[in-house]
Amino acid sequence: MYKINLQLQSDSPKTLTEQLYQYLKEELIKGTFTRHEKLPSKRRLAENLQCSINTVQAAYNQLVDEGYLQTREKSGYYVADLSGILVLEPEEYKKKVEAEKSPPYRYTFSHQGVDHEQFPFSLWRSLSNQIISTQDAELLSVSDPKGLLALRSSITHYLQSSRGVRCNANQIIISSGTEFLMQLLIQLLDAKAVYAIENPGYEKLNQLFKSNRVQYVSLPLDDQGVEIKALYASGADVLSITPSHQFPTGRIMPVTRRLQLLQWASEKFGRYILEDDYDSEFRYAGKPIPSLQGLDGQGKVIYLGAFSKSLSPALRISYMVLPDVLMERYETYLSFYYCPVPLIEQKVLHAFLEKGHFERHLNRMRHLYRQKRELLVSCINSLLPYVEITGDSAGLHLLLNVHNGMDEKELEQRAADYQVKIYGITRYYSQPPEEPREATLLLGFATLNLEEIPKAVTLLKEAWT
Amino acid sequence: MYKINLQLQSDSPKTLTEQLYQYLKEELIKGTFTRHEKLPSKRRLAENLQCSINTVQAAYNQLVDEGYLQTREKSGYYVADLSGILVLEPEEYKKKVEAEKSPPYRYTFSHQGVDHEQFPFSLWRSLSNQIISTQDAELLSVSDPKGLLALRSSITHYLQSSRGVRCNANQIIISSGTEFLMQLLIQLLDAKAVYAIENPGYEKLNQLFKSNRVQYVSLPLDDQGVEIKALYASGADVLSITPSHQFPTGRIMPVTRRLQLLQWASEKFGRYILEDDYDSEFRYAGKPIPSLQGLDGQGKVIYLGAFSKSLSPALRISYMVLPDVLMERYETYLSFYYCPVPLIEQKVLHAFLEKGHFERHLNRMRHLYRQKRELLVSCINSLLPYVEITGDSAGLHLLLNVHNGMDEKELEQRAADYQVKIYGITRYYSQPPEEPREATLLLGFATLNLEEIPKAVTLLKEAWT
Repeated sequence: MYKINLQLQSDSPKTLTEQLYQYLKEELIKGTFTRHEKLPSKRRLAENLQCSINTVQAAYNQLVDEGYLQTREKSGYYVADLSGILVLEPEEYKKKVEAEKSPPYRYTFSHQGVDHEQFPFSLWRSLSNQIISTQDAELLSVSDPKGLLALRSSITHYLQSSRGVRCNANQIIISSGTEFLMQLLIQLLDAKAVYAIENPGYEKLNQLFKSNRVQYVSLPLDDQGVEIKALYASGADVLSITPSHQFPTGRIMPVTRRLQLLQWASEKFGRYILEDDYDSEFRYAGKPIPSLQGLDGQGKVIYLGAFSKSLSPALRISYMVLPDVLMERYETYLSFYYCPVPLIEQKVLHAFLEKGHFERHLNRMRHLYRQKRELLVSCINSLLPYVEITGDSAGLHLLLNVHNGMDEKELEQRAADYQVKIYGITRYYSQPPEEPREATLLLGFATLNLEEIPKAVTLLKEAWT
Repeated sequence: MYKINLQLQSDSPKTLTEQLYQYLKEELIKGTFTRHEKLPSKRRLAENLQCSINTVQAAYNQLVDEGYLQTREKSGYYVADLSGILVLEPEEYKKKVEAEKSPPYRYTFSHQGVDHEQFPFSLWRSLSNQIISTQDAELLSVSDPKGLLALRSSITHYLQSSRGVRCNANQIIISSGTEFLMQLLIQLLDAKAVYAIENPGYEKLNQLFKSNRVQYVSLPLDDQGVEIKALYASGADVLSITPSHQFPTGRIMPVTRRLQLLQWASEKFGRYILEDDYDSEFRYAGKPIPSLQGLDGQGKVIYLGAFSKSLSPALRISYMVLPDVLMERYETYLSFYYCPVPLIEQKVLHAFLEKGHFERHLNRMRHLYRQKRELLVSCINSLLPYVEITGDSAGLHLLLNVHNGMDEKELEQRAADYQVKIYGITRYYSQPPEEPREATLLLGFATLNLEEIPKAVTLLKEAWT
């Protein structure tokens, strides 16, 4: 039997029960006890530790409640079957639990999340309520593999009116996340197609092409987007771009370059452009430029969108608009894939769109994000005079070019020392750039609130001085 | 301008308004009107049709409400922009609408759905309510790419206690549907791996392997499952099977064959068995056989499960248990894929499992499906004496071998003539079988209720006499 090796501290800020509970829990997680081992009786342990039986009982009961111990009638306390609780190697588990408890960063300039305070929870709840209460047999059946027709129709209306996308509901496929859409596209397009990605660009694309075992090339960017010369020289068939707000540089592709790219696509059978319009809902300056897809008269553009930025990434709803020819091929070869989005959620989102809530939510969020962006820009301008801001006329992140003699790594590390997380642009390069770059950092501003932004920038100032 | 060519029938069961509305809607869907075309004024149309202005106005208003027409002030009614409504070619759309309106079958012996009457809608709603009302910032963030840890932990407990699967939560990946899990596995396993599937088997697997451009072979079955000789001869590396209730034959693989397969897997590096345990929750006769994964001591089995049969296919929640070595590889190369299941749904399902609702639901459904199965078996035995039932000791479907001189196609067609949908086994063969088979049909019994089953079998009797 395991000997309990603990000295209770009466002068600790923790109660004796808490100390004993914490100690036993850690030992249980470490795997010190054998499976189903009996623990010392309350009386004996109380004697050993020189505490009251009540202290032991309270600690044991807490562990029973949490599933670490089991009681057997008239017999005592036993180690529970912990295989489901001990999800990781004990050391790893401990690290994970600690990491979850105290995130190392006070402020994270994440480019992935959305504002946490304005999500219409109660509306979402009430729509869910209505949808689930219909006792709808449809909610129990496999539905349209491309996604609920009504939702595809609502998305069509949105895309037509807000993004100038030319499509009908039949061209839309609903899925969960860009990665899943890309997997479908890889299966849909030619097996030998060579894909081209922006460098720097969305960091998952090269991982995705690698793991799907297709060929890809990284293309350098100039001020307007992917370099045309490099594109022609690359032998690429399918070009993946983010023209509305290039990720990560934040540049907006001008119409001239868009037309050049469409021209490139039109010159050869099998060439396509994947337009990832990931955060086009938010634009703060200049006239809105409609989607590239809307300029395309030849069915060469595949448009990808998502509700990750406009609602929440945790909803996992994305979609793509296929040219008719590709949709025909999709229906012939790939319609055995069921739409991965649960039907309840598709119906809730459909109601949210149809009843005008989405438009209202977008307007509110546009206003809020504009405020956040302006506050962030003004804090940076007043506190960090050696910094130049770029890529801030759209979307939920901007870039800093920092001219204070520090390199990207040092800037990142110093910010981390002050518990501020920022993202050096290097991580978004699938190929290291040819020329040396100035230190550039990506700052997302959606998740921080208006009170946090000045505090976070103040910390950056301290960190970088 | 389009001439309205309609004769209103005063002796029709439909009102004049309904007749006019229906007629105009069909013409609009057919695309007879040009975009933005102006419709005749109410007065003129009323004169032409010899009806009251009110009749025309009511029909027009209905079409405005449904988005087919638009009004312009002081000008009249115009054809709306129908690109979002006209989701298909007019003819196709009409077919689709009609197919949805009046399904050609009165009774469908589907093997895909679940019972429609016993789903715990109100419980699901109240759990959703609780989850969404927490205003949980986590609901707005991207979470663990493998799925919510708490849910993986609950699934672990279930698999350990009910299916004898040996695993911890760290080995589990949550996704949406077997096809998505298979796509991940294809990327995880060797690019040159040859996959083997059961013949007959789940009809999507060969489509999936084809579209993912990997090599696969079809293996014949004997009474125990895939033929061992054929397996060795095939050169396969990865074998996909349904040992608990072979799909579609319904056979349960005995332990001897299981051990032979594990032996095969152990003989070569890179060999794996994919155990698809798609409907093992429901077993009606004999002792439960634990999962193949539970027999495996060498990390050769990848276990796949889902909530499609036990809860609903529309939830789109499935999972797999990876051996440690593969999980390490997964975390290194594939953890950039986010879990496609929305976080709200993961949390609702977690609460459903943790609070014991799932166990209770399963018990209720086991009882109900047992009743349905017994009723179906007894109806068949009394009404169809020339039929032999197989594959009925587990799962949600059984097979009929029909000895009345008709072949499979004829049996299917005659049933269809009586508006009963059954599934000939031929469609599940990826390779046509070498020997001629007796006529075999698959009947799923989950979606029909206890009143419908005798009626459906009576129709089969009439159809086949």
